[in-house]
Amino acid sequence: MKTGESTSIDIAPETNNSGPIGKKKSTTPLLAAPVPVTDRGTHRMKRGLSIFDFVLRIGVLASALAAAATMGTSDQTLPFFTQFFQFEASYDDLPTFQFFVVAMAVVAGYVVLSIPFSIVCIIRPHAAGPRVLLLILDSVALTLNTAAAGAAAAVVSLAHSGNSSTNWLAVCNQFGDFCQQASGAVVGSFAAVLLFLLLILFSALSLKNSH
Amino acid sequence: MKTGESTSIDIAPETNNSGPIGKKKSTTPLLAAPVPVTDRGTHRMKRGLSIFDFVLRIGVLASALAAAATMGTSDQTLPFFTQFFQFEASYDDLPTFQFFVVAMAVVAGYVVLSIPFSIVCIIRPHAAGPRVLLLILDSVALTLNTAAAGAAAAVVSLAHSGNSSTNWLAVCNQFGDFCQQASGAVVGSFAAVLLFLLLILFSALSLKNSH
Repeated sequence: MKTGESTSIDIAPETNNSGPIGKKKSTTPLLAAPVPVTDRGTHRMKRGLSIFDFVLRIGVLASALAAAATMGTSDQTLPFFTQFFQFEASYDDLPTFQFFVVAMAVVAGYVVLSIPFSIVCIIRPHAAGPRVLLLILDSVALTLNTAAAGAAAAVVSLAHSGNSSTNWLAVCNQFGDFCQQASGAVVGSFAAVLLFLLLILFSALSLKNSH
Repeated sequence: MKTGESTSIDIAPETNNSGPIGKKKSTTPLLAAPVPVTDRGTHRMKRGLSIFDFVLRIGVLASALAAAATMGTSDQTLPFFTQFFQFEASYDDLPTFQFFVVAMAVVAGYVVLSIPFSIVCIIRPHAAGPRVLLLILDSVALTLNTAAAGAAAAVVSLAHSGNSSTNWLAVCNQFGDFCQQASGAVVGSFAAVLLFLLLILFSALSLKNSH
């Protein structure tokens, strides 16, 4: 009886003081109208997913930028040269690596542009529109990212081990530092691919619960 | 005046006649009851999207199988040979092409396994569970498919044009038929990538409307 009384009393000062924390919680979720009790769990879960989405986007941005920068600055000049030649390796000797740098830069640019939509999803967790837009554009960016990563990985592996059938020799014996930098860039882009897959997973889960 | 009268007359029977319909609408929240008028369009649209999903899956299966088979049977023996060598090119000379064949076969296998879930989505257009499952697994299969396609495309382009910086010579001069078959396989796998993107697009749209 006493507890029942105390809660009924709490309601009155709450509107004045906004004092008791429990009461504050029950009034804060609402944006326009009171959220039904059954929806409150979903609401909190969706907001959590949205915040996680935002954090993952920062991670993708870091990975993509790191991959593009690592590959873009890969450059090695050998310490010996002849009268006519200086032996130098750079990413723009290989068209695949050029594509890689451009593609990863585009992916990083897309992620920057997508961050405002991610913030909208945090503010309005129940809005399905921006989430579907992000899901579809994320898939396209994932495809570009994966194609660049796969292509660069194929060329890096050729550069490392060569191929006897086609008489392509391994060039990493001479250009070890260059190869290491290219390998690092490939690893970074595959990290971005994994993070993109997680982004799509969480978007799909969040959409599923928007009944 | 006549038009004004006619509109004022129209209102009266409308309120009388649509009375039962209005009642019906207010009682429809139960799922077992007949489908409400407003939901019927959504229902039909979602079923249409599911059928389209099924058709697209058949297309992906055909593309992936064709790509795997074309690459897997690519094999060329040159018409001249020495005492010790017979010049032959096959997909398993290059690890990238081996990966391509395996990956495309895995994608084709996944598509076959996903078809029952697609049929479930046709029968029950409002079920969000199987659709989210398909969306997530489609993304993973898309990643595998794109990685294989990108890697094979990089190697095929090297085989076509070679690279002067690394002293890798173009081998397509000798093995023209082999290169053509490999290029065809790469085109097929990129077709599968596009169809996968469409699949994800339609799944996302369908999820958006499952309010």
